[in-house]
Amino acid sequence: MALGESALLTDLYELTMLQAYHDRGMNATAVFELFVRALPSRRNFLMAAGLEQVLDYLEQLRLSKEEIEWLAASGRFSKSFLESLADLRFSGDVHALPEGTVFFPDEPILRITAPLREAQLVESRVMNLLHYETVVASKAARCVIAAPGKLLVDFGLRRAHGAEAALLSARASYLAGFAGTATVLAGLRFGIPTYGTMAHAFVQAHADEAQAFENFACSHPGNATLLIDTYDTEAAARKLVALAPRLRGQGIAVRGVRIDSGDLAEHARRVRHILDAGGLTDVNILASGNLDEYALQALLAAGAPIDGFGVGTRMNTSADAPYLDCAYKLEEYAGQARRKRSEGKATWPGRKQVYRRTDSQGRMAGDTLSLEGDAQAGVPLLKQYLRGGRRTGESPPLAEIREYAAAQLAALPAPLRALDGAARYEVAVADSVVELAGAVDRATA
Amino acid sequence: MALGESALLTDLYELTMLQAYHDRGMNATAVFELFVRALPSRRNFLMAAGLEQVLDYLEQLRLSKEEIEWLAASGRFSKSFLESLADLRFSGDVHALPEGTVFFPDEPILRITAPLREAQLVESRVMNLLHYETVVASKAARCVIAAPGKLLVDFGLRRAHGAEAALLSARASYLAGFAGTATVLAGLRFGIPTYGTMAHAFVQAHADEAQAFENFACSHPGNATLLIDTYDTEAAARKLVALAPRLRGQGIAVRGVRIDSGDLAEHARRVRHILDAGGLTDVNILASGNLDEYALQALLAAGAPIDGFGVGTRMNTSADAPYLDCAYKLEEYAGQARRKRSEGKATWPGRKQVYRRTDSQGRMAGDTLSLEGDAQAGVPLLKQYLRGGRRTGESPPLAEIREYAAAQLAALPAPLRALDGAARYEVAVADSVVELAGAVDRATA
Repeated sequence: MALGESALLTDLYELTMLQAYHDRGMNATAVFELFVRALPSRRNFLMAAGLEQVLDYLEQLRLSKEEIEWLAASGRFSKSFLESLADLRFSGDVHALPEGTVFFPDEPILRITAPLREAQLVESRVMNLLHYETVVASKAARCVIAAPGKLLVDFGLRRAHGAEAALLSARASYLAGFAGTATVLAGLRFGIPTYGTMAHAFVQAHADEAQAFENFACSHPGNATLLIDTYDTEAAARKLVALAPRLRGQGIAVRGVRIDSGDLAEHARRVRHILDAGGLTDVNILASGNLDEYALQALLAAGAPIDGFGVGTRMNTSADAPYLDCAYKLEEYAGQARRKRSEGKATWPGRKQVYRRTDSQGRMAGDTLSLEGDAQAGVPLLKQYLRGGRRTGESPPLAEIREYAAAQLAALPAPLRALDGAARYEVAVADSVVELAGAVDRATA
Repeated sequence: MALGESALLTDLYELTMLQAYHDRGMNATAVFELFVRALPSRRNFLMAAGLEQVLDYLEQLRLSKEEIEWLAASGRFSKSFLESLADLRFSGDVHALPEGTVFFPDEPILRITAPLREAQLVESRVMNLLHYETVVASKAARCVIAAPGKLLVDFGLRRAHGAEAALLSARASYLAGFAGTATVLAGLRFGIPTYGTMAHAFVQAHADEAQAFENFACSHPGNATLLIDTYDTEAAARKLVALAPRLRGQGIAVRGVRIDSGDLAEHARRVRHILDAGGLTDVNILASGNLDEYALQALLAAGAPIDGFGVGTRMNTSADAPYLDCAYKLEEYAGQARRKRSEGKATWPGRKQVYRRTDSQGRMAGDTLSLEGDAQAGVPLLKQYLRGGRRTGESPPLAEIREYAAAQLAALPAPLRALDGAARYEVAVADSVVELAGAVDRATA
């Protein structure tokens, strides 16, 4: 079984609570919502992602006999409770923002309505999936905004936080507008286009750099991107110019070169000049090395003649904001609205919906957080995905999600497209929500 | 198959290089070393972790028939090359720092000596594993230093970057000195002690907070930690005091309380006072909520009467330094030393060893980076773990690695234990390494 499919990929407190719920026969319908409390300092918006993996997880949820036996051996749980786990499945409803939707603090991105034990147990993994893909899609969307029209490729497997982070960040960045990934398995699993160049080791393994270029180009005719910064970037570009006629004689063209160190803008300018002067105007330039949206913006503002970027570590660790202040909170139990009032962490109770207004150009013009039954101006954003534990329809293909995400970015008001995080978007709270919060507080005072 | 076991969890460029190596019959012995180029700004040292997972990965490396067929369908590779992949296994040697070893920039933490195609293919996943566990162990070690004698528990599953990050951060933080984790599956997989309390949802699902406490305590007699900040922290502490005699009548004691919001030091002081005045001197106080080594140090400096800490997100995303500037570089091929000279990224060539001197108290007193055959004062740190693709011996149990890591932290010179990253440790480079670099440069000029 894959790591992420185990129902034991959960926090122990979910199970200790389930034991106590079991002992008291508490298993009425619970409503939990997942939302982000506040934006990181340099974010103006977030982009929802990871729902597809959440639905997969919920649909296959079960504890194996071996897992239950292992829990029994811990001595923490009663026999009757352990027996009750054997038939645990997810039988509830899921409403969520479609993947690729732009959203803001306090707006639910997912709602789970299910018997208490189910809705409680899945908290940890549901958050683990939605949080990470949302972190990455939000970061990748900023790169897409910073480098319009440029080829962006996920290069981040090696420093992603584990195998699943590598796979899911390839998916989330593609969804947000990247052209593809270097991670081969993401191509196999998700059908994402894969891109590959060569490493310094390839050049180093040859006694002669030009020979390395020739060998690689011959093995990948028409499709080779050569790494030119192993020793001296401009000298390597000149070697390529010198080599090109011989390759052309064999019907072989080189597609591009990659620069991975030094002043990327300055090297790109010099290399472009060398290539153009040598007749290689159609060889494109790819840059990589500690890139993120800030670096992309700076390189393009400096007029660097770079056609594409390998963006890795800082994107898939979301280095300037590696986590979101998100929460999965009980909003209703057994028909009664609930909320917590912890200092700085109070939540809005009830089953909520987000309504979004747009202006005459289709630009986002303000959201309202309301209760499900209290319609507001605009379009409701949360849709239903699971009913009674089963999908309500087929999932959209990733390419379609990617188009939707692009449309979402195109609908962002201009100030929100800035990278500095200074802009704010209006999210009004409907009176019905405020009134319900007051009623809940009086009931639990 | 688990995600992380697939040989296709690699960068596409590894495969495009392998195609070119195959076309030229280049498969002599290659030596790659993995090292960190520079410390993040607030780190004085790093702690190696993840080797066990690397060895597991290398021992099981192979491409399935389905994976090779999928590669064939891409049209990028030759039939002869694809056929050659069927019998690809890892047949090389691995030398590495034992897990838990403190290390510094430029010191190899792993060396792979293998036929070129094997050593190249594994680059991406070997880095992915060693990098992440090292990031987390290094961060967790700082928490351990900041909170001596306190119970530290990994609470980070929900915001770890995916399933594997959750599992591996539980392992890496335990190895570095944490007492355990909340992640149940990490208990099952690695035998790490698990800890669990309750969530706000448990309190909210009850109409009455005191009733929630009583139910939970009855379900976990002697072992309950109650979350007391859902509504009003001090009021909840008083409810526990009022409840305690009735629980005692049933032979039930509460083990602890958890505070998750507000001014943790101030709440802890008030709660300690309420509990002590109510005769509950043996109920301990656990704190959680956005904690890291800086927060732990500040809380303890303020004299907060807190017995244990749940440390999550900021530890397992290593929020202030979510990645390391690490590299896996070819140092020798077919008996010839190699290095790259890229600006700011030049490497030391050859098969290297690290020698560490200690003073009369056993404190670390300086390292020397040397060539394997050029012994220096001190003890060599890199040991052999794989020979011909198979383990040279049994892996140490995690508890033993944890003791070794504790001894490493105890041997740190005092300035390196500070959290600000201002201290520097001497790593000398032996003449033999400098001379070899010069010789390599002359040969590849």
